[in-house]
Amino acid sequence: MEHRLDKFAHYLRNKQIDAAFINSTENFFYLTGFQTDPHERLLGLVVFPEADPIAVLPGMEEGQIREAGWTYEVIGYADHEDPWDLINQSMKKKGIGDIQTAGIEKQVLSYGRSESFFGLFNDITVVDIEPQLNEMRVVKDAEEIAIMREAAELADYGVKVGVETLQEGITEMEVLAAIEYELKKKGVAEMSFSTMVLFGEKSGQPHGNPGDRKLKAGDFVLFDLGVVWKGYTSDITRTFAYQSVSEEQEKIYKKVQEALEASLSISKPGTRIGDLDQTARDIITKAGYGKLFPHRIGHGLGINVHEFPSMSHLNDGVLREGMTYTIEPGIYDPDLGGVRLEDDVLVTKDGYETLTKTSRDLRVIQ
Amino acid sequence: MEHRLDKFAHYLRNKQIDAAFINSTENFFYLTGFQTDPHERLLGLVVFPEADPIAVLPGMEEGQIREAGWTYEVIGYADHEDPWDLINQSMKKKGIGDIQTAGIEKQVLSYGRSESFFGLFNDITVVDIEPQLNEMRVVKDAEEIAIMREAAELADYGVKVGVETLQEGITEMEVLAAIEYELKKKGVAEMSFSTMVLFGEKSGQPHGNPGDRKLKAGDFVLFDLGVVWKGYTSDITRTFAYQSVSEEQEKIYKKVQEALEASLSISKPGTRIGDLDQTARDIITKAGYGKLFPHRIGHGLGINVHEFPSMSHLNDGVLREGMTYTIEPGIYDPDLGGVRLEDDVLVTKDGYETLTKTSRDLRVIQ
Repeated sequence: MEHRLDKFAHYLRNKQIDAAFINSTENFFYLTGFQTDPHERLLGLVVFPEADPIAVLPGMEEGQIREAGWTYEVIGYADHEDPWDLINQSMKKKGIGDIQTAGIEKQVLSYGRSESFFGLFNDITVVDIEPQLNEMRVVKDAEEIAIMREAAELADYGVKVGVETLQEGITEMEVLAAIEYELKKKGVAEMSFSTMVLFGEKSGQPHGNPGDRKLKAGDFVLFDLGVVWKGYTSDITRTFAYQSVSEEQEKIYKKVQEALEASLSISKPGTRIGDLDQTARDIITKAGYGKLFPHRIGHGLGINVHEFPSMSHLNDGVLREGMTYTIEPGIYDPDLGGVRLEDDVLVTKDGYETLTKTSRDLRVIQ
Repeated sequence: MEHRLDKFAHYLRNKQIDAAFINSTENFFYLTGFQTDPHERLLGLVVFPEADPIAVLPGMEEGQIREAGWTYEVIGYADHEDPWDLINQSMKKKGIGDIQTAGIEKQVLSYGRSESFFGLFNDITVVDIEPQLNEMRVVKDAEEIAIMREAAELADYGVKVGVETLQEGITEMEVLAAIEYELKKKGVAEMSFSTMVLFGEKSGQPHGNPGDRKLKAGDFVLFDLGVVWKGYTSDITRTFAYQSVSEEQEKIYKKVQEALEASLSISKPGTRIGDLDQTARDIITKAGYGKLFPHRIGHGLGINVHEFPSMSHLNDGVLREGMTYTIEPGIYDPDLGGVRLEDDVLVTKDGYETLTKTSRDLRVIQ
């Protein structure tokens, strides 16, 4: 964390930002090593180019951030206290004044909290510090990758449990419950998003909700799930056929698989990110399914399950070693059902590795 | 929803607010009847004093908001489109111009999105519309209360499952997994927050995290859990003793129970909200445990598990019929462990009803 804080303070010096307020739980965790979600209560980190940073959080979590190794100042406020007053007092004690440029996470910090933060100063110029934090977080270090490997392995395990649970007449929610039960028994405290188990025509909704739809022969079965593990996420999608598969279903499946594998095959340092989407999209469009693939190819993956970069065909950024993201093409037919396949990808020195390992080949579950 | 939208448009007319942008998934649900979480993608509702509202959401969810009964305009954008451009075009088509006052949810809308929204207009005055939405949401109608009753019943069931799962040597995470498994089998798609199961000294941390701590005789066992059910939440806490209870544990338990019941007993229309906290706090403080009760007495409960009002001793608001909230005093001894008891409360015409029904009396699980 020390190294990350140094790097961030260095950035503030370079950009002549006099104070930065970090409010997202994810960036707070990235810079402090302490992960928490205080809901509507204020959590924040004030970072300065020269002075030591200040962590601000509900008083009852003060012990926990110390346990996590935080050695700088902590403002642990009680519910009846105004944390902004306490920040102000602390800054005065540190002799910090004359703030002319203030940095915030523009897409995260609420308008109301920005008013509170800016209210500590006179006229200021506002700078968005999120791009810098995204930039720092986008390339994962060895420790982060090791954790993400474990998170992906747990996602693979979730799919395995799901497949083993399938039987005629079982509902989507029953399968979902079984998956999460087994993952929680392995110590997973939280899924990285609401687990998706969709049968038949319901798999044809890219954002469908699991319910009491019962499994029957000929259904597609779509799993989309991931875990939060030691602060990092995974996100896998697999689609299976149950008992039988029609020619048209098989055609769709193989097209999605081809699109995913084509996009994977160009994953290496230097590749334009938008090309990952375009490559998959071209394959699906040429096959006549372009309108049935309504979303981007994927998204960055790390502390957040959806993080920088957003991988649409418009993204002109390039892949770098250590980046982690999803590739997840899909074809959604409202009647026939849908197929989506998704892997978690790590860019290596000269190519890629999928962190998720479940086979992508079409499997008809008997 | 029609009625709620009318009421909100009426408020806009009264306050001379020319356009309001609603960004929170909760207020969006409250006004549209459609609940969704598009993660980092934009979800919004633009409401005008006279013209019809516009819902803005990812294109792939357009079908779902229609199914939920939304009959007004929908802007369903693709990932490569700029939804703000589309909002601008739609407003032009509607002939809406000359916006001088714009309303936002100040504590929700990000600074960056506020820039995008305000960028559609020339110089504007900003008004916070959240207090009005809080005011509308704070009193629940019969339909909402019926759902919250079901949500609370599921929370009671979660505690029951937890108690039945206890056995020497089982871990916190194993008990947690069993609770969520049984709830998911009943159709619960999502817990209202990360379920808490804490044993022994770990129950002494108000915000502890369940892990592999094993249950042993003499432990306190603290459950804090709730579900999201048809868009509404529940939130219960119960603490049990396992196999035996010491005199000091029993003393703490009874003090917390006394505090909760005293605070409940004054729950009725007209009571100052801060008095709920003060009443419980006085009891705990007089018994010498004041420092071990570091949080407010409770919070509003509804679409959000933590919503308006925040029930600290400073709150000068008054209770009204139809309000729903938690009362949850606690005493946390870092060595002995902690006790928290929490009920979901509905203010009735001349008193209160607890929606959660699990007994509050000390129970030693054998």
